[in-house]
Amino acid sequence: MAGGNPQVVLKRQRDGVPVPEDFSFIDGPMPAPGPGQILVRNIYLSLDMFVRKAMRGDHYGYDILKPGDVIHGNNVARVIRSNHADYKPGDVIVVESGWQHYAAVEASKVVAFVDPMLAPLSTAVGALGMPGLTAWASVTHLIQPTLGSTFVVSAAAGPVGAVTGQLAKRAGARVVGIAGSAEKCQLVTRTYGFDACVNYKQADWEDQLKAACPDGIDGYHDNVGGTMLQAVCKQFNLYATVALCGRPNDYNAGGFTGIQMGPFIGKRARVKGLVVYDYYGDRDTFLSVAGPLVREGALKVKEDHVSGLENAIPHFIKLMKGENIGKAIVAVGPEKA
Amino acid sequence: MAGGNPQVVLKRQRDGVPVPEDFSFIDGPMPAPGPGQILVRNIYLSLDMFVRKAMRGDHYGYDILKPGDVIHGNNVARVIRSNHADYKPGDVIVVESGWQHYAAVEASKVVAFVDPMLAPLSTAVGALGMPGLTAWASVTHLIQPTLGSTFVVSAAAGPVGAVTGQLAKRAGARVVGIAGSAEKCQLVTRTYGFDACVNYKQADWEDQLKAACPDGIDGYHDNVGGTMLQAVCKQFNLYATVALCGRPNDYNAGGFTGIQMGPFIGKRARVKGLVVYDYYGDRDTFLSVAGPLVREGALKVKEDHVSGLENAIPHFIKLMKGENIGKAIVAVGPEKA
Repeated sequence: MAGGNPQVVLKRQRDGVPVPEDFSFIDGPMPAPGPGQILVRNIYLSLDMFVRKAMRGDHYGYDILKPGDVIHGNNVARVIRSNHADYKPGDVIVVESGWQHYAAVEASKVVAFVDPMLAPLSTAVGALGMPGLTAWASVTHLIQPTLGSTFVVSAAAGPVGAVTGQLAKRAGARVVGIAGSAEKCQLVTRTYGFDACVNYKQADWEDQLKAACPDGIDGYHDNVGGTMLQAVCKQFNLYATVALCGRPNDYNAGGFTGIQMGPFIGKRARVKGLVVYDYYGDRDTFLSVAGPLVREGALKVKEDHVSGLENAIPHFIKLMKGENIGKAIVAVGPEKA
Repeated sequence: MAGGNPQVVLKRQRDGVPVPEDFSFIDGPMPAPGPGQILVRNIYLSLDMFVRKAMRGDHYGYDILKPGDVIHGNNVARVIRSNHADYKPGDVIVVESGWQHYAAVEASKVVAFVDPMLAPLSTAVGALGMPGLTAWASVTHLIQPTLGSTFVVSAAAGPVGAVTGQLAKRAGARVVGIAGSAEKCQLVTRTYGFDACVNYKQADWEDQLKAACPDGIDGYHDNVGGTMLQAVCKQFNLYATVALCGRPNDYNAGGFTGIQMGPFIGKRARVKGLVVYDYYGDRDTFLSVAGPLVREGALKVKEDHVSGLENAIPHFIKLMKGENIGKAIVAVGPEKA
């Protein structure tokens, strides 16, 4: 079997935070596009929390990976050859093309076209990609914070949280983040411009949150779930709105934390599940709002880049341990053809 | 201490389903109204699930009962004497006046005036009282079922569930109840006119629910919580709306069942806590809708009456065991002055 296509594949299925031994870095075969398929060269891999779930087949639309399967990846890529009328060589797209250099994919795996003039290419899987679209849907469709209301975001230093808070701030809310280190909290307040940020790893973080929200909490974008959701609820005002968006604490664990609904009834909370796929049809509207903000630097973006496909493995493990700062990106190919 | 005022008082605090030994039936002192107070004669006691929580001080606005304290009760009563300008002898009111014949109460304990011409007096604590107002708030404010949508109600034979389903039906929904016996299911379909009712005590009740909701579930009025809420969620359509209204299974237990939020995110559910006190200001609007329907027999009401204050004890235990059928009422005094 001829090589020429470096790949990261699954070595073994295992619960818990991934370790390097769960993966193999191999030289795979160069793919050939079949009828209707597209050959792409990956440029930037997006590392996302949901990939951990997808590896186990627990995420919508993903089959469980078997040993030897390429790890799922949502990437910025360039079209090299095309047997599909909608795509031509040179097009830059966001595509489900896995952790490898080259992939031959069906057109159904293409998420979107990327306008290379709009902003740096890697933002197409970050602030202007799925994380940004998630944030926009939460602020403009689910929570709809009002002027002067208090809006809280967990995982505030992450790619979804950072954009969610910045958009809520632009909508006139007082925005308070929750993050997992002093360094992340600094990023959240100094770079992203949140009004405050609480480090949940400090024992008195609930008191700090209360102090940071003197008028109570009106909107909560929940990227975490579990005990943090339960704790934040204590500070809700009546009729607080909650967007349930992710449960990364649960992705490694396998088990899930049950939520006591009594306090949510007491607060007359409005709890709304958010699944970003519902908003793919609104991508142009989102980009018309967020694209100029990113280009002008009004919406701040911090990315955590490494280079080289083999570095996807430690970079992903760092992400799943909550140790990264900013959107995790792996540069695996040239930006220009 | 002079007698003349039969009372049911707490004998001991205890977890679990109440037993007769938790109560004492005594001859208490005849109360005298102080300045600003009203002396009332109770006519109908309303027995409600929340009283179990209130006895323990777990319900909003209620202090924990000590041995010797009169059991909390929301009653239809007549004003006998009044030291308050807003009330005069002969007025019929709904009032927090406890399980006893007579009470001297502050005006703040009065919930509402009752129009004796509107409908049978006991409906003022049932279909036209707090249970009916709860049902109306759920249908007209929280869930807002649309024509042809599928609406499910748990504890469907109970005073809240029965009215909720009948109002949702009038709003054009297909209405499916969940109840705990074949007899209750018969009441729900034959008397209350629901399209179907599922007995959750049958092992295959989830399959029965699925069969009864061939187009999935769009709205769910949850009177139960816990594992039933989790099970019903499986049949939700995307964007299903849920009103969380009660957790009677939890009231006896002390412990609370945690809810897994993952399936609710997957269904993009809209979960809304319902607290009826928020809608007391809408009582006239509610009565203008429901009053004529009850009077004309278009909104069916089934009440489970016993007579004599001492019978409040077994009647309440029956309610907490889920063995009663229809709104539990205790007649303790004459309808006419």
